Amino acid sequence: MKLSGYFLPVLKETPTDAQIVSHQLMLRAGMIKQTSAGIYAWLPLGLRVLRKIEAVVREEQDKAGAVELLMPTIQAADLWRESGRYDAYGPEMLRFNDRHDREMLFGPTNEEMITAIFRDSVRSYRDLPRTLYHIQWKFRDETRPRFGVMRGREFLMKDAYSFDLDEAGGQASYRAMFVAYLRTFARMGLKAVPVRAPTGPIGGNLSHEFHILAETGESEIFYDAALEDVDITDAGAVEQLTGIYAMEAEEHAKVENCPVPADRLRSRRGIEVGHIFFFGNKYTKAMGMTVQGPEGSAVVPQMGSYGIGVSRLVGGVIEASHDKDGIVWPDAIAPFKVGLINLRVDDAACAAVADDLYAKLSAAGVEVLYDDRDERGGAKFATMDLIGVPWQVVIGPKGVAAGVVELKRRGGGDREELSIESALARLTA
Amino acid sequence: MKLSGYFLPVLKETPTDAQIVSHQLMLRAGMIKQTSAGIYAWLPLGLRVLRKIEAVVREEQDKAGAVELLMPTIQAADLWRESGRYDAYGPEMLRFNDRHDREMLFGPTNEEMITAIFRDSVRSYRDLPRTLYHIQWKFRDETRPRFGVMRGREFLMKDAYSFDLDEAGGQASYRAMFVAYLRTFARMGLKAVPVRAPTGPIGGNLSHEFHILAETGESEIFYDAALEDVDITDAGAVEQLTGIYAMEAEEHAKVENCPVPADRLRSRRGIEVGHIFFFGNKYTKAMGMTVQGPEGSAVVPQMGSYGIGVSRLVGGVIEASHDKDGIVWPDAIAPFKVGLINLRVDDAACAAVADDLYAKLSAAGVEVLYDDRDERGGAKFATMDLIGVPWQVVIGPKGVAAGVVELKRRGGGDREELSIESALARLTA
Repeated sequence: MKLSGYFLPVLKETPTDAQIVSHQLMLRAGMIKQTSAGIYAWLPLGLRVLRKIEAVVREEQDKAGAVELLMPTIQAADLWRESGRYDAYGPEMLRFNDRHDREMLFGPTNEEMITAIFRDSVRSYRDLPRTLYHIQWKFRDETRPRFGVMRGREFLMKDAYSFDLDEAGGQASYRAMFVAYLRTFARMGLKAVPVRAPTGPIGGNLSHEFHILAETGESEIFYDAALEDVDITDAGAVEQLTGIYAMEAEEHAKVENCPVPADRLRSRRGIEVGHIFFFGNKYTKAMGMTVQGPEGSAVVPQMGSYGIGVSRLVGGVIEASHDKDGIVWPDAIAPFKVGLINLRVDDAACAAVADDLYAKLSAAGVEVLYDDRDERGGAKFATMDLIGVPWQVVIGPKGVAAGVVELKRRGGGDREELSIESALARLTA
Repeated sequence: MKLSGYFLPVLKETPTDAQIVSHQLMLRAGMIKQTSAGIYAWLPLGLRVLRKIEAVVREEQDKAGAVELLMPTIQAADLWRESGRYDAYGPEMLRFNDRHDREMLFGPTNEEMITAIFRDSVRSYRDLPRTLYHIQWKFRDETRPRFGVMRGREFLMKDAYSFDLDEAGGQASYRAMFVAYLRTFARMGLKAVPVRAPTGPIGGNLSHEFHILAETGESEIFYDAALEDVDITDAGAVEQLTGIYAMEAEEHAKVENCPVPADRLRSRRGIEVGHIFFFGNKYTKAMGMTVQGPEGSAVVPQMGSYGIGVSRLVGGVIEASHDKDGIVWPDAIAPFKVGLINLRVDDAACAAVADDLYAKLSAAGVEVLYDDRDERGGAKFATMDLIGVPWQVVIGPKGVAAGVVELKRRGGGDREELSIESALARLTA
C-alpha cells in the first residue's frame, strides 16, 4: 500500500479527551475516529488490525472444532422474554420499536437466539455435541462510555455457544474452549491469566475470565506464582491452570485465609479480554429445547458460552505493547509487516530502489506500507514508529550509492545496514 | 469439513411461506434461518457463500484503488440533520433514542458519515482523489419484507464513496467504479447489465443500476442487443456501455421514440445488485467540507457513492443459477469446492479411501465437505445436489475394489469414473 493513496490521518497532538494510552495512540495513529459517544469508525489502519485479530480468533475457534455462523444484530424482544432476561436486563440493552411497533433490541449477547436456532433445527442426540460461534457487532448502552474501544458501546465480539448431552460433555466443551483461548492470546504475543470468576447475569456455576497483563491494566489480579510455570501446550494445562489460585482484586478481597503463601502471591494489573461460562440447562430448559437421547427419551442439553472482545483486544494489545514513540505491534497482528521509507522521493535512484523493493516484497506476499510522500524524513520516521509496523526499511541517497538500505526492528530498535538483496531475503524468509 | 461435526439443517419440504426460488433453496439448503420478519441468521453454509462474495467484492474494490474502512451501524440523528436528510428519509429509517435520550438511528447508508469523517481528517488537495469503502450491515425497515435475503431489513452492503477536486475527476472515479462493478459480477459468473437510472433520494445527475440477468428476476430490462457484444475487458468498455440504450421497464415506458430499432431491442428479467451515483457537491456543500486547492483557495469536493448488495447477491446468484435439484454455485463463490460422499461408512475400505482423499484434498488447500454420516446414499446425493457444491466425489464399495471413484460435475451433471490419483490431480489442479 502506497501512503500517497492511503487514508491515514495521524495526529501530531495527543487528544485531550483520551485518558488511557491505547485510546490516545489509536487516535494519534489514525486507527479510529469517534462518530458518537462510545461509537467509532475503524479507519483503514485500525480495520487492518481488527481483521488480523479476528482472523487469529477465528482460526483457533475452527481448530477447536467450533462451527461459524452469523446472527443478526437486531433481535426480537419476545425472544428474550422466553428466557426471562428481557425484563432483567438493565438500561444497557438498546431497545426500540420498529415501524410496525414490534419491540426489538440491538443484541448485547446471543444466548437466547442461538438456543432458538439450535432448538428449531436439531432433533437428535446425534447432532450433539456442537459448539457454534459468530463474530458480530454488539451494542451495550454504557452510561459512561470511555477509554476508546476498551469500553465502547458498539463493539465486536466473538461469542461461542456449546451444546452437550450431559454435564461431563459440557465440561469437556468448556475445557476445549479454555485451551483455544490460551492459544489465541499466546499467538497474539500476549500473556493471559485465567481467573476464576463470579458468573453474574449469564448464570451458571463455572466461569473464568481471561486477563492479559499490562501495567496500565484496568483491574488488579492476584495469583499464585506457580501459574507462570504452566506450559500451555501441555495436555494437562487446563487442569493445572484451573487448580491454581487466581482472582481479580474484588473477589480476592472476599477470600478469607488465602491459600497462597505470601512469598508466592503475585499481584499484576490486567485487562479482561475473554469470559467463559458453563451454565448447564439454564437457557435450554427455559426455552424448551430438547433432543431425543440415545435411549429415546427427551434430553435437555447442557450449554456454555464463550466470549472474546475482539475490538477491545485492539486496545488491550496496545496497552500491553507500546513505548514512548508509539505502538509496538506483535508480528501476528501487525497491520503491515514492513514500513518502507523513501527519504528522498525527488531522487531518481532512491525512488527506483524503493519502487523495486516495494514491488518485490508485495509480489512475495509481504504486506508493506510504502511512504512515498514528499515529506521530511523526521516526519516519516515518527509516523512509522507511531503506527508500530514491526520492520522499517529506510532508503536514502548515501545508502543507495553504497548499495545498502537500513533495516530497523520497531520493538527493541535494533538497526542494521545491509544489501538490498539481504533485506529482501530477510523480510521474505 | 466433516458433515458429522457440521451444522447443516437441510429441509426436506419447501417452506410454504417462501415465494421465490432463491428463498426456498436457501431455507432448504440450511443457509439461513429467519429470526424476525426480514431478519436472518446466516447458518454456516450460507455464511461461507456470503464471505466468498464479500471477498470478490473486496478484491475488486482494492484493485480499483479504493481504501477499506469500517463505519459503525449506529449513527447520530444530528449527523443526518447536517445534510437535511433526517426529516426527508421516511419510515424505512430505524430511529430510536439511547439511554441519555439522544436521537440515534441504524444506518441505511453512509453518505453523511463518510463526509464528516473525511471533512474532519483532510485539509489539502494532496489528499484527493480518494475512494473509501466499507462492507457493513445496514438496516432499512421495509414495510413488507419478503423474498428472503433479496428484500430483507438487515442486509450486508458494500458502499464506496469517492472524493475528487473537480467534476472531471469525479467522473473518472465514477468510471473506475463502473469497471470494478463489471469485473466483480463477471468473476461471480454473472451477466450484469448496467442500466441508466433515475437518481432518487441520493440526489445528483448521473446514476447506473447493475442488474444481473435471471429468468425469475424481479424487474424487466429493455436494452439494445449491441450491449451483449461489448467486451468488458476492453479499455473503452465504460464509454461503449454507457452509450448503449438500457432501461428498466418503468423508465423505458416513459421514453418516447425509443432509439433502438425493434429488431435490436431485447427484453430480459433482471435483479438489481448494484447502484452507483455521481452527485457532485450535494453533501460536501451541505456539510461544509472544503480542502485547500492547489492555488490556495478553498475547494468543495465532488462526490459519488457506489453500492453493492452483498447479502442480496447470494439470493441473486441462486436465482440466476439453479435447477430442479437445487443450487448450482459458480466456482468462484461456492461454499466448498468438493463434496466428498462415502456411500458406506461401515465399510472399512471405503472409509479408508474417503478419509485419505479428504486428508489429501484438505492438505492441498481444497475446501471439502465430507459426508461421513451414516445415511442412505440417496439422501447424501440429494443433499449435495441441493447445496450445489461444484464437484462431487462418490466413493462406494464396487469402485474402491476396482480402484476408482466417481467424479460428478454439479453444473451439467457430467460423471466420470477415474482412479483415485487422477481424481486428486483433477481437483487440486
